[in-house]
Amino acid sequence: MTLTIALDGMGGDHAPGIVVDGAAIALGRAPDLRFVLYGDEAKLGPLLAARPELAAATAVHHTPDFVPGDAKPSVALRQGRNTSMRLAINAVKDGEAAAAVSAGNTGALMGMAKFVLKTLPGIDRPAISSVMPGRSKPVVVLDLGANVDCTAEHLFQFAVMGEVFARVILGVAKPRVALLNVGTEEGKGDDVVRGAAAMLRDSGLPIDFKGFVEGTDVTEGVADVVVTDGFTGNVALKIAEGTATMFTAALRDAIVKGGLRAKLGYLIAKPAFQVLKDRFDPRRYNGAMFLGLSGVVVKSHGGTDALGFSAAIGVAADLVAKRTNERITEEMRGVQPTVAEAAQAVAS
Amino acid sequence: MTLTIALDGMGGDHAPGIVVDGAAIALGRAPDLRFVLYGDEAKLGPLLAARPELAAATAVHHTPDFVPGDAKPSVALRQGRNTSMRLAINAVKDGEAAAAVSAGNTGALMGMAKFVLKTLPGIDRPAISSVMPGRSKPVVVLDLGANVDCTAEHLFQFAVMGEVFARVILGVAKPRVALLNVGTEEGKGDDVVRGAAAMLRDSGLPIDFKGFVEGTDVTEGVADVVVTDGFTGNVALKIAEGTATMFTAALRDAIVKGGLRAKLGYLIAKPAFQVLKDRFDPRRYNGAMFLGLSGVVVKSHGGTDALGFSAAIGVAADLVAKRTNERITEEMRGVQPTVAEAAQAVAS
Repeated sequence: MTLTIALDGMGGDHAPGIVVDGAAIALGRAPDLRFVLYGDEAKLGPLLAARPELAAATAVHHTPDFVPGDAKPSVALRQGRNTSMRLAINAVKDGEAAAAVSAGNTGALMGMAKFVLKTLPGIDRPAISSVMPGRSKPVVVLDLGANVDCTAEHLFQFAVMGEVFARVILGVAKPRVALLNVGTEEGKGDDVVRGAAAMLRDSGLPIDFKGFVEGTDVTEGVADVVVTDGFTGNVALKIAEGTATMFTAALRDAIVKGGLRAKLGYLIAKPAFQVLKDRFDPRRYNGAMFLGLSGVVVKSHGGTDALGFSAAIGVAADLVAKRTNERITEEMRGVQPTVAEAAQAVAS
Repeated sequence: MTLTIALDGMGGDHAPGIVVDGAAIALGRAPDLRFVLYGDEAKLGPLLAARPELAAATAVHHTPDFVPGDAKPSVALRQGRNTSMRLAINAVKDGEAAAAVSAGNTGALMGMAKFVLKTLPGIDRPAISSVMPGRSKPVVVLDLGANVDCTAEHLFQFAVMGEVFARVILGVAKPRVALLNVGTEEGKGDDVVRGAAAMLRDSGLPIDFKGFVEGTDVTEGVADVVVTDGFTGNVALKIAEGTATMFTAALRDAIVKGGLRAKLGYLIAKPAFQVLKDRFDPRRYNGAMFLGLSGVVVKSHGGTDALGFSAAIGVAADLVAKRTNERITEEMRGVQPTVAEAAQAVAS
């Protein structure tokens, strides 16, 4: 069965090259994929001409207009009706594509996706979710920045969505779900996290809720799904990135400044370093899912290369094939009426 | 001139050994130090007997009662009037010591310190501040967990305190101050960070305010002082710790699993690895300052060794010697009346 994915050909630092090359890699892995590609035909044409197999699987829509990387989301939403990003999302809404993938402006993509696709039944706010490297296995973390202000109800919904994602897409049989907090004891944190904890305990859903975790527990793998508000989640993700970058740079520094002896040792141990590098290769974790939308939208890292973009396409295809959104909707239907009422009371 | 520091002899995973040994190291570096040591004399006596120079500089107060590491701060505050931690803080209040240092329960220490010492004029809430490793130099970050809910006014006060700390203690001539946010653009974040940004711009204080920074900017060293609420700051600090730990473990793993060749390379390059290890040695960054109190209190990491504890004593001595609290008070007096009024309006 073919599966069609809409691609924003103009989003990302290295578009359209990485979009076309990424699609070619994805097609090589999954020959049933089909693409609808939005972007400047003058640029896309030659790239596709060099890849006849991809060209045969791709419909190009000439779309010269695009969302700049630094555009204000509100402006992009108002003025970007004919951009490659917007038309890729529209394709999902109109049923021409099963999912959309873009490496463009995150805020604009989320704003447009929310406006065009709306949220799933039972979900008030979509969340940005991604997979962070953990000590023994990857950890699903959400929200990573879509919602700077969250209520307990929002966090509860994020937890339900993250649990489904870990189960359905990552294949974790019984995902352990936790709320990110400043300590693990019950009374820790603010009203929002404590309220969300109460809702998760009383939901009646078969979620393996582990309570609160601290920052150090995330990489330790104490939970498979870590839930937080978009402010904290965004800072946490970027602090982790920054620390990893600093560490890698410091390692390089130590080797370079360590003189001949350090360089020799490094060369000898190089295969081991390569294993380490591959393990934390950000392209393995590329693709932030916009969970909670009535439609599948995946955001690739703006600075990604073709391999990373192909991973984001793979994630999108997987989300569709495994009916992730349908499962989230079913799960939300199972929430205990008392919790639903409490949520209503909190929301109003 | 001598400077007396009150020590909680019973706080920390490895107390009282690391407290006594840490004090001995600190005394070796600064022979003018004097100590008032609170704790169980039966345990402290033999340790001091083995260190006659330290014993001569130390007054021991037999205090069998102590705050357990897992005590609830509110319980410790109510029931811990005769604990080694509380008496060390009382010594600062009563003028018997210029500062207190403890490796015990952070929440209890902050709760007691706030209750006993109160805050400095112009400061509503004390903040936990520490120094995180950055790519080229350390970065002052606050609040790291004292206040999970913060107003714009609180963040503003934290910024003033952090700036004074970086200038006075770290010797940064003109510290660059920034607010941690989900993006660098002016409209990003919630009302709290945007409000704090407006106050910092309009304060009239000679602070080099750089606006917003993201998580990745912290380690990059875009600012010397990074200000955030205690929830986000606590998560950020622990995510950075967790990522560093994971990276170190992965490096070790890669060497061990890389077989003989990797081990040989490692052995040859070992001096370079040692440089790396020393650079990120958490003991170099030990000592979380409780800024904003009418008195100097420093929290050492609970799992610290003697070297780390001696660093915390050094920080406390430095805070006193450089009149940090007096300088914070002077700075707050210089805040523009309009900003002070706005703050008042926000607070009420």
